[in-house]
Amino acid sequence: MELHGADIYTESKLSGINENDIIDFSSNINPLGIPKGVEAAAINSIKYSNRYPDINSRKLIQSISIYEKVPEDWIFVSNGAAEAIFRIALSVMPKNGLVTAPSFSEYEQSLKTAGANIKYFNLYEEQNFKITDKIIDFINEELNIVFICNPNNPTGQIIEKQLLEKIIIRCKEVGAIIVIDECFMDFVENNERFSVVKLLNNYKNLIVLKAFTKTFAIPGIRLGYCMSSNIDIINKLKLSGPPWNVSTIAQAAGIAATKEMLYLHKSKLYIKDQRNYLIDELNKLNIETYDSYANYIFFKMDDINFKEKMIKNNILIRSCSNYKNLTDGFYRIAVKTKEENQLFITKLKEIMGW
Amino acid sequence: MELHGADIYTESKLSGINENDIIDFSSNINPLGIPKGVEAAAINSIKYSNRYPDINSRKLIQSISIYEKVPEDWIFVSNGAAEAIFRIALSVMPKNGLVTAPSFSEYEQSLKTAGANIKYFNLYEEQNFKITDKIIDFINEELNIVFICNPNNPTGQIIEKQLLEKIIIRCKEVGAIIVIDECFMDFVENNERFSVVKLLNNYKNLIVLKAFTKTFAIPGIRLGYCMSSNIDIINKLKLSGPPWNVSTIAQAAGIAATKEMLYLHKSKLYIKDQRNYLIDELNKLNIETYDSYANYIFFKMDDINFKEKMIKNNILIRSCSNYKNLTDGFYRIAVKTKEENQLFITKLKEIMGW
Repeated sequence: MELHGADIYTESKLSGINENDIIDFSSNINPLGIPKGVEAAAINSIKYSNRYPDINSRKLIQSISIYEKVPEDWIFVSNGAAEAIFRIALSVMPKNGLVTAPSFSEYEQSLKTAGANIKYFNLYEEQNFKITDKIIDFINEELNIVFICNPNNPTGQIIEKQLLEKIIIRCKEVGAIIVIDECFMDFVENNERFSVVKLLNNYKNLIVLKAFTKTFAIPGIRLGYCMSSNIDIINKLKLSGPPWNVSTIAQAAGIAATKEMLYLHKSKLYIKDQRNYLIDELNKLNIETYDSYANYIFFKMDDINFKEKMIKNNILIRSCSNYKNLTDGFYRIAVKTKEENQLFITKLKEIMGW
Repeated sequence: MELHGADIYTESKLSGINENDIIDFSSNINPLGIPKGVEAAAINSIKYSNRYPDINSRKLIQSISIYEKVPEDWIFVSNGAAEAIFRIALSVMPKNGLVTAPSFSEYEQSLKTAGANIKYFNLYEEQNFKITDKIIDFINEELNIVFICNPNNPTGQIIEKQLLEKIIIRCKEVGAIIVIDECFMDFVENNERFSVVKLLNNYKNLIVLKAFTKTFAIPGIRLGYCMSSNIDIINKLKLSGPPWNVSTIAQAAGIAATKEMLYLHKSKLYIKDQRNYLIDELNKLNIETYDSYANYIFFKMDDINFKEKMIKNNILIRSCSNYKNLTDGFYRIAVKTKEENQLFITKLKEIMGW
């Protein structure tokens, strides 16, 4: 499980710091925390947990349908986005899959579980780790599936919709499924310019993946979903794993979350403001950052022991050295609350001797 | 999803009865309800759900290790027992699997998802649907996996440990994995006489499956686990599906549940008492029942529309006609609270004209 980088439970064991005392910059969770309405719905649902959850998650799917403005039968809900990724791989059963390097490791993991060969489209520092139209040449008849994360994790880079549609069309030509992971899209300003949800109706080979995890700060509750206008894909997803995969609590929390439009609006503004603060401060310290459209910042430092130094200050960050195509010195931090971000910068300055 | 029989959400839609007004005899959940300590732990955990759950479920596995008296590294935890069943099938990737007919439908479903051929060992009414030693002759080199539910669902029958060990040994001889599903074993009187957990150390081809779902009345929270002394099997299970599969709430509820020994003791006595009451009353009405060791009763009636008649009284029961090797007229009911069981008998008498 090394591929996920650190987590507060492991770090707590290693460092002797109580897990509640670790400030976790390594997970990209909405800094505004669980919305009150979602928390109340989750707590209230516990008393109904002596019943099985609705096997078809009907009310939740209704709510997502309204939230995403797509028909109910285009939606598959899952035990976190990670489960949707695995179910996609297990229902497509691809011989060959393409992922970008670096990107979220679960695409690779799911392809391995499905027994697929994995091809990599490398992203380069000189190009700010942006996906370029060179990827089109990589997509050929051998491929059965392509995973693209937009904005990309860990780099925070976004792809313009025009290029993305070219990639989708190229996948269609070669008969490949394309999965666009928009798990961080709800944090992006003017995201209707980038999201491909509106293209679902045009492309039967397109799957868009989303999660409640990051957007509504509920990773512990486990709730993700994916959408496709290809009903055959949705039906296969249902059969590719266990029934009752979405808990009563996740269904209740998800229904409540889709009504939190003000929270979402506030989150976007807050994250933008705090992201600018962090990038400014990092840049002032001559630390190279990359444009980020998401709620995290990817940066490079000469100090290859920065993570170890930070945990001594009870701050956990993500070292990105174990991502494919990255080396020591690349790090990712979440945009957290104003106070936490200020503390991060203070500790960073101390470590750098400023 | 027809194979699971009815559920309160579907029945509510079909009948127009509010789901909260349906008395659900179709799910075999502990009638004492969620233990107070488990409910409190689950509610308290919601506020920590803005963190990822521990990817390795360390504290939960520690608790299960003490509860089951097996080493921690023999335990794999899952999003309900259903997920463990699918992960087992997907990590064994069997060519041929054996199940009894009737039995819990998820064994078949998981084998189908893994692309396996399914062989059936038929259970016969004349033998009270008991598994006999004839099953030994069915286990040959072609088989890669055997699923046995003990006590069996829906029949409530149990296998003597002596016969079960013969079956395990036969599986070992032919190189097959054997999965013994003991999801209802915690309700069985003197269950140490029947459980094969103590045999785990002797047989590397043995997996024992359990769930918190039924025992602690938390199907909505989703928590199951399986055990094997074969560490290679446990490691494969971890890689056969998504990480973070057990939610923060399930981990907290599970830890609390393993301490509910008094609740468990009371549950066994209560279920025994109420099961005897229901069987007596059914038999007085000349309805044939079969010995049940679990918290449900399997019976046969001439009336093939009994389920439809019962739902008109807001009572949902399980028609077993869609189980393999069963026909119309077989039903299963859960042992519920004294008041609910009395209501069931009253309504049954009304329907039968007594």
